Amino acid sequence: METYNFLCDPNGIYYLGPEGSFSHQASTLLSGKLIPKPTIKDIFVAVNNSLDALGVVPVENSIEGPVNETLDNLFAFDGIYSVYSIEIQIDLVLASKSDLSKVKKIYSHNHAIREAQNNLEKLGVTNFVPVESTSKAALMANNDRESAAICSSFAAKLYNLEILYDKIQDGVNITKFLVISKKMRTDGNKAIFLFTVPHKPGGLYRVIEKFYLKNINLTMIYSRPLRNTPWNYYFYLEFENFDNLSTLEKDVREVVIELKNKGSYTKLT
Amino acid sequence: METYNFLCDPNGIYYLGPEGSFSHQASTLLSGKLIPKPTIKDIFVAVNNSLDALGVVPVENSIEGPVNETLDNLFAFDGIYSVYSIEIQIDLVLASKSDLSKVKKIYSHNHAIREAQNNLEKLGVTNFVPVESTSKAALMANNDRESAAICSSFAAKLYNLEILYDKIQDGVNITKFLVISKKMRTDGNKAIFLFTVPHKPGGLYRVIEKFYLKNINLTMIYSRPLRNTPWNYYFYLEFENFDNLSTLEKDVREVVIELKNKGSYTKLT
Repeated sequence: METYNFLCDPNGIYYLGPEGSFSHQASTLLSGKLIPKPTIKDIFVAVNNSLDALGVVPVENSIEGPVNETLDNLFAFDGIYSVYSIEIQIDLVLASKSDLSKVKKIYSHNHAIREAQNNLEKLGVTNFVPVESTSKAALMANNDRESAAICSSFAAKLYNLEILYDKIQDGVNITKFLVISKKMRTDGNKAIFLFTVPHKPGGLYRVIEKFYLKNINLTMIYSRPLRNTPWNYYFYLEFENFDNLSTLEKDVREVVIELKNKGSYTKLT
Repeated sequence: METYNFLCDPNGIYYLGPEGSFSHQASTLLSGKLIPKPTIKDIFVAVNNSLDALGVVPVENSIEGPVNETLDNLFAFDGIYSVYSIEIQIDLVLASKSDLSKVKKIYSHNHAIREAQNNLEKLGVTNFVPVESTSKAALMANNDRESAAICSSFAAKLYNLEILYDKIQDGVNITKFLVISKKMRTDGNKAIFLFTVPHKPGGLYRVIEKFYLKNINLTMIYSRPLRNTPWNYYFYLEFENFDNLSTLEKDVREVVIELKNKGSYTKLT
């Protein structure tokens, strides 16, 4: 079955490193050689250069919203499609080589700092040093006894940190990852279209109408700036409950300027 | 005229500090006592506590997209409205106390780093230290001769830095600020609605249709996560060319679960 090709024996599975990241954790659901990359763009470049490779990129967080860098790279790389989604519950811990009284600064990714903001305020912890990822934060805290990291318990263990506070994030926090590939799928139950519309009243309406008429459920919509023209946008649309993706694509093409069909995907569990 | 009340003699104009920020630059278009605040949320709190105060908050960048913290605070603070917008051309410079050969790290805000990414890659500059704002970055570079800052020329001058490279940002880059107040305006030519829709096919369509039927132009749409319920969203919608805001509000209320009318505003130039 075509579906399984996406999961087996690829040339490499690229994830957002370093080792111990949530992206790493997500990529362990796939089988193959796991290779860390320093940026989301680097993952797109690596997948673009290999027909069998897969990439695992964060696309949305249930608290913080979309990961703009992933959306913009999906728009920039024409031949790359979504084939799976993976959802990871983000449990953040505050971890250190020392106890809290000795901690003078806290390393973490900006997203994680915001996700834990309310609880950190209660602890009186305020001196944050933003770094590229929560696993990098764990690495930094390993090198500096006067610091702590906000990271996953997985990363805390990997970098020999003691967990000072468990589940420090505000409420339930899930990050959704997309598995990306050069091969398009049409048999999934969710799909992504990126498009631009004429800059006049009703431009977006005429697109949304196409989905409404087929009783298709929109699950996510974002306008994102086109970098070259101020205040001009492309739209990122995720939807589910469609019958035929290529028929829908044909319909939508009638009312857009440009359409990028990013294919369909299923949720891996 | 009611309009002018928003510009004159307020109890204070709160901007996103520190001194020298783009938010500071934007707020100089208003007359009154300019007061820096460390976070966007602090500005909302200050405005919420005073009937005559104004706040100046970044809401969108023409390259990076929306400022989520502003959107989410507009949603969280019910009695706060938009009354003006201000657009500032963001010219970034690379500035330091030393020349480039001695620079070992670059301070800036994450947004600014991304905005200058392509040009910085060409310069071979890669060791970034994200800080809260471009003006904080200038302050840091003032304290450390082995560093540089990506900041405005205004901030570079304020903190006695030499400009190593001018206009380092990729292409044209404009940041839009909203002036916020506890007083609602209805006489502006742009407006903002925040709303939630029933979680079923056509939920968003029925809202967009209301605008389409009145020939109203949508200028910005974002879905933003509701922090308490994973994968549930509110929508942020900006629009222009409407006749009567309260009639429109009444129409839209028919098809939404919750609606927050953030009032209308005009662009200050």
